[in-house]
Amino acid sequence: MLAEPAAAMGVPLRLLAEAEGVSAAQVVPDHLVGDYTDLDTLREVVAGCAAVTFDHEHVPTEHLEALQQTLPVHPGPAALVHAQDKAVMRERLGAMGVPCPRSAVVATPGEVEAFGFPCVLKTTRGGYDGKGVWFVSGPDECAEAFAAAERAGVRVLAEEAVDFRRELSAQVARSPSGQVAAYPVVQSTQLDGICHEVVAPAPDLDPDLALEAQRIAMRLAQELGVTGMLAVELFETTDGRVLVNELAMRPHNSGHWTQDGAVTSQFENHLRAVLDLPLGSPEARAPWTVMVNVLGAEDETGRLYDGYPHALARDPRLRVHLYGKSLRPGRKVGHVNVYGDDLDDCLERARHAAAWFRGDLGEDSE
Amino acid sequence: MLAEPAAAMGVPLRLLAEAEGVSAAQVVPDHLVGDYTDLDTLREVVAGCAAVTFDHEHVPTEHLEALQQTLPVHPGPAALVHAQDKAVMRERLGAMGVPCPRSAVVATPGEVEAFGFPCVLKTTRGGYDGKGVWFVSGPDECAEAFAAAERAGVRVLAEEAVDFRRELSAQVARSPSGQVAAYPVVQSTQLDGICHEVVAPAPDLDPDLALEAQRIAMRLAQELGVTGMLAVELFETTDGRVLVNELAMRPHNSGHWTQDGAVTSQFENHLRAVLDLPLGSPEARAPWTVMVNVLGAEDETGRLYDGYPHALARDPRLRVHLYGKSLRPGRKVGHVNVYGDDLDDCLERARHAAAWFRGDLGEDSE
Repeated sequence: MLAEPAAAMGVPLRLLAEAEGVSAAQVVPDHLVGDYTDLDTLREVVAGCAAVTFDHEHVPTEHLEALQQTLPVHPGPAALVHAQDKAVMRERLGAMGVPCPRSAVVATPGEVEAFGFPCVLKTTRGGYDGKGVWFVSGPDECAEAFAAAERAGVRVLAEEAVDFRRELSAQVARSPSGQVAAYPVVQSTQLDGICHEVVAPAPDLDPDLALEAQRIAMRLAQELGVTGMLAVELFETTDGRVLVNELAMRPHNSGHWTQDGAVTSQFENHLRAVLDLPLGSPEARAPWTVMVNVLGAEDETGRLYDGYPHALARDPRLRVHLYGKSLRPGRKVGHVNVYGDDLDDCLERARHAAAWFRGDLGEDSE
Repeated sequence: MLAEPAAAMGVPLRLLAEAEGVSAAQVVPDHLVGDYTDLDTLREVVAGCAAVTFDHEHVPTEHLEALQQTLPVHPGPAALVHAQDKAVMRERLGAMGVPCPRSAVVATPGEVEAFGFPCVLKTTRGGYDGKGVWFVSGPDECAEAFAAAERAGVRVLAEEAVDFRRELSAQVARSPSGQVAAYPVVQSTQLDGICHEVVAPAPDLDPDLALEAQRIAMRLAQELGVTGMLAVELFETTDGRVLVNELAMRPHNSGHWTQDGAVTSQFENHLRAVLDLPLGSPEARAPWTVMVNVLGAEDETGRLYDGYPHALARDPRLRVHLYGKSLRPGRKVGHVNVYGDDLDDCLERARHAAAWFRGDLGEDSE
């Protein structure tokens, strides 16, 4: 999705793709297929580039440090580690006094018991979209988490099971020069641990709490030295506080609404930040924007391109984004954005369209 | 620019590029370099495609007719000829009773004299951006036009020099199924025969005249069988009529404002129409949108990528589109869009940014 603003701005991209034909390789002519854990491959792809960035957090830190000797790496490895390693992140945020759920690195079920049940266990690295996260209420439920951590060669973090009203996301873009642009705080709804629906701005959010969330995101961006997009996922607790859940240092699913709903999309601002260009306005263009993900259905009844005729005819203002991926159960294959003056209307239209692409509506399902 | 909505919609493009490295080839991985006047090359590039379209009008009609035997060609050659050949267009529009400047095909300066001076001479095919157009006020000024026509193997059309207040453009998208979406009528300002500035909607345009312009565009799209985008360039005469000047059957410079100013851009609607998908809303998203072209300056003082720091810092809501082309005097290398509630503010911001990229502002020019 970075390719769209790059094309608009005339910025040439060079891509390291995991395999021929993946989404990004379909739209970036100048690409190399290779392994992002191999330093020689990384050196080859960045040769001649003005800067380097990435769309996931799994490039080894030491490789990023090596690349940083020869060209700007955004975000830099010293910042990125806080999005890669949850234990490092919790320790740093705790030291900064940023409100977080209570947490501790644990090595045995006994240590989890000492931490207190029920709680959430997370592998410190490598998890995403609900993978690497377990809700446990007793010592006998901890085996899976510890086994997964051991297989991956990482640790286990125990976190307080937060009593939350909903999840929020505060996104900021920050440039190497230190300019920061804060997007409106949004409400994010998960389904099976995967981001499902985003409403921008978060409805009925206390303005002080919204400001607090933006301040946390701006402070983290500055003090951790983040360059590019930072998403701070937060819990809004039932007693009216915000606690930091996760950090992502890249364009994030909770910001896909910005493609059609903000003056400058998160993808364009990421690109601008990586190139140390002045950031674009993060303002919303409409009172409400709703983003709903299109996920492959379990029963493989979903629609991709063949979903267009109905979806586009029903709603001429619908904005559809499909990623050129094949359908697999639970896989994010696209999203829809709907903006407007009336939130209920936006929700209905976006949910209908996403359900249609997913295959939950139509002749087969009646 | 079609590549951006194609990427968003997950629609794979295959491109025939004139040369390696041209704008479109920079953003469309699946491209072939070849000659668009060679039928075998055309057959090779369209093999396996669902439909074919083009971004200029110069593919030979007989080749499009040949391709049409094997796959949908949008716009089809029978429609396209009205954008390729001004004599054919004038004859057809005259027969339809569509208001046009008085015109006649002329073969000698004597015939131009019989038509009446002053008048405008145009080669019937191949002209664009002010090329192939001469304003003449006497028989001794006609030689260049006739020589150019003879070189190109085409005819000369004489047209009445219209006393016009300004130029307008009415764009519609039409799908093979016959659905039509009409964009707001815009005001277009030329500089040396090249589109320079577009204001959407056309300020102070009589609503009846706007409707008349849209009706003409919708009628032409339907009766000529246009599929894809149609731009009808019109004169608004000093006595309050509209007369058709030119037709273009593709996304057109007068519609670049739609990328940031309309719900659905002309590029996305062209793509949808070519694929016979339901069209997106052509509504404006803001009260005013101004587009100003970035042209290479005569003295080569222009800026491309190095123009970004000032332009983006001065105006965080500026939308810049650069085409990945090198600077050449008079060459369109990009455009800027500015939208908002206040027309004067939009004009100032867009003109400043375009002048900056052109090199007319800044230390060198003071």
